[in-house]
Amino acid sequence: MDKSTPAFEGPVCPIPLQHKSTIVIGHGSGGLLTHQLIDQVFKKHFRSDYLNAGNDFALPFLPVGNKNGKVVVSTDAHIVSPIFFPGGDIGRLAVSGTVNDVCMSGAKPLYITSSFILEEGFPIDNLEKIVISMQKTAEEAGVEIIAGDTKVVEKGKGDGIFISTTGIGWLADGLEIRGDLAEPGDAVIISGTLGDHGISVLSARGDLGLETELVSDVAPLSSLILELTSQIPQIHVLRDPTRGGLATTLNEIAEQSGVGIELYENKIPVIDTVRNVCNLLGFDPLYIANEGKVIIILPEKFKDQCLMLLKNHTYGKNAAWIGNVTSSHPGNLVLKTEYGTTRILEMLSGEPLPRIC
Amino acid sequence: MDKSTPAFEGPVCPIPLQHKSTIVIGHGSGGLLTHQLIDQVFKKHFRSDYLNAGNDFALPFLPVGNKNGKVVVSTDAHIVSPIFFPGGDIGRLAVSGTVNDVCMSGAKPLYITSSFILEEGFPIDNLEKIVISMQKTAEEAGVEIIAGDTKVVEKGKGDGIFISTTGIGWLADGLEIRGDLAEPGDAVIISGTLGDHGISVLSARGDLGLETELVSDVAPLSSLILELTSQIPQIHVLRDPTRGGLATTLNEIAEQSGVGIELYENKIPVIDTVRNVCNLLGFDPLYIANEGKVIIILPEKFKDQCLMLLKNHTYGKNAAWIGNVTSSHPGNLVLKTEYGTTRILEMLSGEPLPRIC
Repeated sequence: MDKSTPAFEGPVCPIPLQHKSTIVIGHGSGGLLTHQLIDQVFKKHFRSDYLNAGNDFALPFLPVGNKNGKVVVSTDAHIVSPIFFPGGDIGRLAVSGTVNDVCMSGAKPLYITSSFILEEGFPIDNLEKIVISMQKTAEEAGVEIIAGDTKVVEKGKGDGIFISTTGIGWLADGLEIRGDLAEPGDAVIISGTLGDHGISVLSARGDLGLETELVSDVAPLSSLILELTSQIPQIHVLRDPTRGGLATTLNEIAEQSGVGIELYENKIPVIDTVRNVCNLLGFDPLYIANEGKVIIILPEKFKDQCLMLLKNHTYGKNAAWIGNVTSSHPGNLVLKTEYGTTRILEMLSGEPLPRIC
Repeated sequence: MDKSTPAFEGPVCPIPLQHKSTIVIGHGSGGLLTHQLIDQVFKKHFRSDYLNAGNDFALPFLPVGNKNGKVVVSTDAHIVSPIFFPGGDIGRLAVSGTVNDVCMSGAKPLYITSSFILEEGFPIDNLEKIVISMQKTAEEAGVEIIAGDTKVVEKGKGDGIFISTTGIGWLADGLEIRGDLAEPGDAVIISGTLGDHGISVLSARGDLGLETELVSDVAPLSSLILELTSQIPQIHVLRDPTRGGLATTLNEIAEQSGVGIELYENKIPVIDTVRNVCNLLGFDPLYIANEGKVIIILPEKFKDQCLMLLKNHTYGKNAAWIGNVTSSHPGNLVLKTEYGTTRILEMLSGEPLPRIC
């Protein structure tokens, strides 16, 4: 977009935003204060010509000319508490979560839109930290933040900051990767240890009397996934085990594909600290949220190649083969325990850890 | 998308959702309760194969084959209070707001994604009313709701329901409509009366001791805009005067285009009730939000044709020519009053009406 006079520059916003200050209702007015916030926080860090154009819409370039592909879209709301936690923050979470959902189709994520619901009194310093973290994560993921919106609610009607993101990607022809494509005989692989995100957020709340060295796994998986799909286009299913954890996500896939899935308990990678905290508090790591992990389901003959590719990547070092797809017990997930017994793992039910995604 | 086994059907969700019940934390867990909510409220009313496919992403069809156009994207968060108001609700507002932003580029809106942040205790009956209203508005607008997400916050950390929407549209080659394209000599037209939405929401709050017959103008403008752009592709600028009202929006355009804009006070259509309430409370209708109105800026020679097209449409009956674009006082909006005097209308500053969009 060629713009000789970008909106909201120069004389429109002469008053410098006080960086020690907090969000007030006027920042959601659409008027001068909103424009100051956009200028001095959002546009300052989200470097996009689409945003600078100052329209209520963006016209992103998509590589659609040769017709050989499809647009992919995904959306998420993010409400994590606390908003800053070991290994990440709500901004990194928002961008990673949506980038990862787009990736799970096999698509290359290209663009992100973000809308913010801010509570009156929220420190603008914190907003800026979050915005910087979003831009950094977007750069790591290879996406551009192209459109946004900000609304402000009265004190007591929100919780600091909520961020909704929508991702847009491009899926080249030749890849067919979906939750309904798992086949009996397929191998089930996880890209790393389970439960790191959920337990580190829980521990960061401080109300459990627990202090751990744990760090969230929150990360954009685009480079990892693009490497996998370019080398092994035969992958059947990719999905990130976020809310509800591995067990809930595999239940969804078993249901969608009409197959059974068997997991081998002693193959599932879990960090000792996560296992200990879970034992102490009565949680099961298989139901805890992850934000930088992916489940890969693919024909057995590509299993070793897939594991090798994963282990060569920062975000796949602890990858492991954890199970198989079966034609027996369709729709169900079965755990083979270390003691040789089996039990059915249901979808998460009841009240889990709130506010972790 | 061909899907033989849609997710979340049949045995996954055997327990009927209690419709007299309220949102609990578990509805945001990603587990069984989330799936019940998706099944029995969202998928029941948002009729989309993309949603039924049960993936975390959608692959919408875009008419990109012939290369003759561009994808258009826009995003918005919606936080209106009260959530039900005369003439609409937060669901109609969310779909209309985003459809309208996509339309303002000249594009045909095609798809909407929606993410919900629900407060624990929110009545599921109300959620269903809102979801039905969204679907109805989407059908009126000619768009499909293709992806969604739901999160739940603890009681006291939200305000019933917030909805973020992202719209995706297709802009055919040949149209160039943007905020930086207003030219001296252009006519400025408004599609109807100003302030109806803001004042009716304010009145619905009941804390002003005012009761009015006013009804919000909230509406998707896609059919109106598509009619206009197909008949008059020479339109320079389209923009909906939402937050900040007509005066703030025209200030943005004057700034983006580097032109002056003159408004004629006696030409600006305002319903008597809106004018009276504004006089009583010290508001200016030019700064009040509208949710079903569009500003059209176009070469003077198309003025009469544009007004005729508008007046023939339900949402343009009260359209009026209200001003002109000038080369003098670039970047400024000037009101010529009924008494022959002129004054500069600044962008909205300070604290306006909160929570109206």
